[in-house]
Amino acid sequence: MADFTYRLRPAEPQGPSILASERAGSNVHVEQLAGHLLWRNDFLQRQKRIVAILERIPIFSKKNQLNMARPDRYQLGLARAKSLRRLSIEHGWDRDDYLMADYLVDEMGPYALQTSMFATSIREQSTDRQRAHWLPKLERWDIIGCYAQTELGHGSNVKGIECQARWDGHTKEFVLHSPTVTASKWWNGALGRTANHAIVVAQLLLPEPGSDTDSDSPAAQDRGATGSRSRYKSYGPHQFIVQIRDMATHQPLDGIVIGDIGPKYGYPAMDNGYMLFHQFRVPHSALLARYSGVDADSGAYMRPQNPAVVYGSLTFVRAQIVMHARLVLARAVTIAVRYLAIRRQFADRDHNHDQKTTPGPAPEQAVLNYPTVQIRILPLLATTFALHYTGEAMYQLYHGTREAIERSGDFSRLAEMHAASSGLKSLCTTLAADGIEICRRAMGGHGFGGASGMIALNNEYLSKPTVEGDNWMITQQTAAYLIKRMTAVAQTLGLAPKDELDLQFQEYLAVNANSNTNGNGAGNTTATAPTPSTRNFDILANDAELVRAFRHRASHLAYQAYRARVVEKKPWTSLMINLHRLSRAHSESLLVSHFHRAVFESSAAGADLDLDEPTLDVMRKLFRLFALFTLDASASEFLLSGAISLQRLQAVLPTVQDLMAQVRPHAVRLVDAWSVPDYLLESALGSHDGDVYNRLFRRAHRDNPLNRWTFNPDWRSEEIVMGEGAENARTRLDALALGLDNTGYERSGLATTTKSKL
Amino acid sequence: MADFTYRLRPAEPQGPSILASERAGSNVHVEQLAGHLLWRNDFLQRQKRIVAILERIPIFSKKNQLNMARPDRYQLGLARAKSLRRLSIEHGWDRDDYLMADYLVDEMGPYALQTSMFATSIREQSTDRQRAHWLPKLERWDIIGCYAQTELGHGSNVKGIECQARWDGHTKEFVLHSPTVTASKWWNGALGRTANHAIVVAQLLLPEPGSDTDSDSPAAQDRGATGSRSRYKSYGPHQFIVQIRDMATHQPLDGIVIGDIGPKYGYPAMDNGYMLFHQFRVPHSALLARYSGVDADSGAYMRPQNPAVVYGSLTFVRAQIVMHARLVLARAVTIAVRYLAIRRQFADRDHNHDQKTTPGPAPEQAVLNYPTVQIRILPLLATTFALHYTGEAMYQLYHGTREAIERSGDFSRLAEMHAASSGLKSLCTTLAADGIEICRRAMGGHGFGGASGMIALNNEYLSKPTVEGDNWMITQQTAAYLIKRMTAVAQTLGLAPKDELDLQFQEYLAVNANSNTNGNGAGNTTATAPTPSTRNFDILANDAELVRAFRHRASHLAYQAYRARVVEKKPWTSLMINLHRLSRAHSESLLVSHFHRAVFESSAAGADLDLDEPTLDVMRKLFRLFALFTLDASASEFLLSGAISLQRLQAVLPTVQDLMAQVRPHAVRLVDAWSVPDYLLESALGSHDGDVYNRLFRRAHRDNPLNRWTFNPDWRSEEIVMGEGAENARTRLDALALGLDNTGYERSGLATTTKSKL
Repeated sequence: MADFTYRLRPAEPQGPSILASERAGSNVHVEQLAGHLLWRNDFLQRQKRIVAILERIPIFSKKNQLNMARPDRYQLGLARAKSLRRLSIEHGWDRDDYLMADYLVDEMGPYALQTSMFATSIREQSTDRQRAHWLPKLERWDIIGCYAQTELGHGSNVKGIECQARWDGHTKEFVLHSPTVTASKWWNGALGRTANHAIVVAQLLLPEPGSDTDSDSPAAQDRGATGSRSRYKSYGPHQFIVQIRDMATHQPLDGIVIGDIGPKYGYPAMDNGYMLFHQFRVPHSALLARYSGVDADSGAYMRPQNPAVVYGSLTFVRAQIVMHARLVLARAVTIAVRYLAIRRQFADRDHNHDQKTTPGPAPEQAVLNYPTVQIRILPLLATTFALHYTGEAMYQLYHGTREAIERSGDFSRLAEMHAASSGLKSLCTTLAADGIEICRRAMGGHGFGGASGMIALNNEYLSKPTVEGDNWMITQQTAAYLIKRMTAVAQTLGLAPKDELDLQFQEYLAVNANSNTNGNGAGNTTATAPTPSTRNFDILANDAELVRAFRHRASHLAYQAYRARVVEKKPWTSLMINLHRLSRAHSESLLVSHFHRAVFESSAAGADLDLDEPTLDVMRKLFRLFALFTLDASASEFLLSGAISLQRLQAVLPTVQDLMAQVRPHAVRLVDAWSVPDYLLESALGSHDGDVYNRLFRRAHRDNPLNRWTFNPDWRSEEIVMGEGAENARTRLDALALGLDNTGYERSGLATTTKSKL
Repeated sequence: MADFTYRLRPAEPQGPSILASERAGSNVHVEQLAGHLLWRNDFLQRQKRIVAILERIPIFSKKNQLNMARPDRYQLGLARAKSLRRLSIEHGWDRDDYLMADYLVDEMGPYALQTSMFATSIREQSTDRQRAHWLPKLERWDIIGCYAQTELGHGSNVKGIECQARWDGHTKEFVLHSPTVTASKWWNGALGRTANHAIVVAQLLLPEPGSDTDSDSPAAQDRGATGSRSRYKSYGPHQFIVQIRDMATHQPLDGIVIGDIGPKYGYPAMDNGYMLFHQFRVPHSALLARYSGVDADSGAYMRPQNPAVVYGSLTFVRAQIVMHARLVLARAVTIAVRYLAIRRQFADRDHNHDQKTTPGPAPEQAVLNYPTVQIRILPLLATTFALHYTGEAMYQLYHGTREAIERSGDFSRLAEMHAASSGLKSLCTTLAADGIEICRRAMGGHGFGGASGMIALNNEYLSKPTVEGDNWMITQQTAAYLIKRMTAVAQTLGLAPKDELDLQFQEYLAVNANSNTNGNGAGNTTATAPTPSTRNFDILANDAELVRAFRHRASHLAYQAYRARVVEKKPWTSLMINLHRLSRAHSESLLVSHFHRAVFESSAAGADLDLDEPTLDVMRKLFRLFALFTLDASASEFLLSGAISLQRLQAVLPTVQDLMAQVRPHAVRLVDAWSVPDYLLESALGSHDGDVYNRLFRRAHRDNPLNRWTFNPDWRSEEIVMGEGAENARTRLDALALGLDNTGYERSGLATTTKSKL
């Protein structure tokens, strides 16, 4: 019998006709809103142009990715990375084109460090002489680089890294050495199999004046690991540029052990690596010496001119993560909204339909019509826009700060930016990471399937709450800044506010400082301070009051933290949970403020919104939905700060539910505006045309390699693939389980010729 | 140069010595607590015995799993499933032994349906005659089965499935038919590649009396899909047992299309499948007819004796999921506690150490000492015990209910059990699933790595919030039960309570009913009902009051729901969010109540706790920690219900922080008591001996197949593996990306001989 499935269609109504009527039922202006969101750098046209190129090239197809062995994913990743580099030249891509292609391929690949941390270090930390030597090689991609900072034993605490760079004054060399297993470099992208050069971060060890540093003798070399330590002084972590592999054989150089650290949650195509040194010598010129260095003659340390330079670059990375979060969450929400508008499940329990006009059972409802689904998805839809406007604000702050530093060496805004970027990195990546999973779960069974497009998205993004400053750790930096600012305001009451934060804190103190400082709970503020005066902002009827409620709650927590730390001198560690909550409250206040300003004060702020009235009206509802939903999630903090009353709180959920009902008809058009191409979504559930079930079925029926094989299900036989025989199967699967056959490679015939000598 | 890494050790202090001193610093009685938790079915001895067997067999090694292609994972899964079956016979395993082995292998494999839904259906839904025919085949495993209920278009709403079983009175056969693509069976485990028999759930279509059902003619057959529908009446979903594949060739039978649906979030070794029928005929005996059937002569329907039977079996599955959750969460918490006790990061910010006695930098702190880490991990540690005691309570309820049904056909407790199991399934799987990810994130970079042991655990468990009743959907069932019970109590005030829930509701109503019913907000209870009388339970000083606060809040939400639905007749759909919150509140109240009873009223309840005083003391602290942490997370509901005051709430976080400091020294011993073997943990971070860094390093350096190959990193060349040449690489990677080479199989030489004819 021929395959009869080709004749079949999904049950009515068809996905495409559902999305068509969803789109017809809303007056949100998609093109206008898309242009409003994605105007920068000609994003939309660029995206269209690059997608068209990538879609035609077989290795950029993503359809088989989830079937592959991890070593194959790396190989495909390397092939793609090379191809992107060649396409750049072929099509004359500029940097934005290249970044767009990288974004669309949606894979952290083996060249990812080349244009980021490797290039950044060379550019920013090198002397002019070093730049002249390395930049041409970098720009021609004659060398492939990575950035080796974190170690097996130390991640966030960079000062604690163990890798040593000991100065040998006799040979004028640095001796790189890993004294322990934990000193092994670890997690460094592109190091494991790809890079031939690395920026190595190591403790700079210089001889104590007058000590004997005859490190040429073998005995002294051994002491280098342990015994000689006391005669050297560490000047902290410094960057060295080091060739790590032979340029012809690609084997690690003698005295270096390198490898890939193995599979992880996401990033299958990236060879995160480990590396250890054994008394490995590099020349004096290896130390990147723009801001600090070692005098080759005297072995004396030359101090950095401005330590804030390093500090600044992490800040910029965090700002970029904040700016990126909106598009990640938009992907998940796009898939969820489209699929849940199409998916039908259960009839309304109270539905009383007329059996005469419509015989048969009551019609099933679109899943997105259920409030229990809306409460998970629609606030996240609103969050994409909240992230957008805060990303835009970060962009302004980023470029303003950067320009001030580069033009006039003015670092004054760096502290504000550092505080904002730390707290927002923590909050925004948590919102996006959790949001992806909330979307996935809302899609039920099909959300769990590979055709959802959610698996890679989730796995990859789950690194973001950890990297570039753990989300729970870096909130201390934001809180410390706020305490400092609150201290200044509290101790100079009455002065003119120098910025919005001053004003916000002053307003809070004007009402609350006395009741708190004179209260009987002074000895134990965080626990039993009297409830502050209830402001009870009119959050439901007045949007500006809603913003004020967020500011008030943040100010309250800042004031509590100031009291505890500055006035009562409590241990920092004991306050950490409160500090985390403070950072979150402040960051939520920033999100709400930026969103409010964008949709209510556009002309005042000088930026034209370019949105017609119906679209703007929906955006304002989304603002209210985001703010009230966020408030409800931390309602007790608003109550404790006196920002709202219990009575007011009771009306929040009904209002949220009402707002969701108003936003619901526009959901499909709103996600359309994010303009995420099908190529990037890689989702049968979320494609623009809504042909969900045909795509799901075809993917399983045509594109699933497992279905090309017939297996022997009989437990009495050890045979697995029909016809291979029991003995073959046994040998093959033992080797597979133990990882002895390279997961397919020994079998492929490639194994004998190309095995590494490592 | 020889591999110098073998000489190296991790930096001091070593993991094993840290865990030794952690263990020495607590007086929790590990063996006693382990026996207390895991006494049932001789769990601990059985676990030890089975681990020893599995650890010696190569295919049960898990170390290469994350490197494998998905088709290889299926094959390994099939080999393991067969091996477990053979081991059962070889070692004379009983059912508990087999289940233990399955639990330890920790993989949903291709035989998983055989002893569960396939066997259950045959045993429970068959007539005696059907049993006599099928049970011997089932028990000898001559047939391999699956359970085909859910479809591409319908999951939770079983009544909506489209697959048809039309009775043909002429031939006395049922005609199975899939009229649409969405009628395709979907997600059914073991169907895709393994099973040769299936329980197929289809709409039973019987001819309307008097209609022409000449279905033998080809024309009528075509109408079977569409036109003839009106002449048939559906009697709803029924189960049929169907042979689906040829027993010799293992090809699908003519008229059936089957395949695996492809990769998904977890379960790589399970072949979840799809299946469509084209006018496929099965005999009258295929309908499993214990409770309902079709008269072969008249074609008349015979009604089910008791519809609650089917309903009961889902309830039992949910109860089992609740009972299982504790061990899943215990695994994640074990890994997190051990690793975070070993991992050092940063010195205390306020540390002032004496440079004379301890020169050098201040010592780094164990990460688990930071309150921001404790607040994520230690409440979850407490949650493992909360889940345990509720699991035990469910076990009692389960067996009591089951016994009542089987012995005397008494279904009276089924409604209570259904409500409890639905709400608890939702809450407990959410707690466990979210808890796994919270643990993983708390472990920073290494938590993201494959050697954490968290990847598979997370991926697999993420199905649980969706399967067997979506966690947001089934809470309606609990809420409906609670509304029914509240209605009965509210309308019969003054009667003697028939159980604890009656008493709980009566207590609430005694204080609050009047203030609510007479309030001015009667028309809009959920939004603006007056705040109920503040009870302000003494949650911090009195454990019984803490339990009462949870019951009060649940009663309050039940009363609000009753008012809205029963008194004010609001639409069910509009109340769904409130109903979800009600179910959660009630379920949390159950967790807190069971935990409290177990550690405070053991003698009263008749079960001897068998714990010495120091251990019991820690358990009581864990109870307080769990309850107060849970209360804090939904604090606004407690405030709104009047269970506590704002003033009281302010003291909750400091109390939680204090409890965590008291529990912290016992954390390692507490997770030890869960007795999760290293074989199951499969984690370098969480192994019992604490040798974290050596394990992490060895795994990367020895056991990572990617490191056996040398790659060509030069972007100018299309060559990938060194030496293979550009042309080979291009062909190979194009095929890989498009899934054309079966992810390695074509290359292996196996491809040509065993390709399926599908």
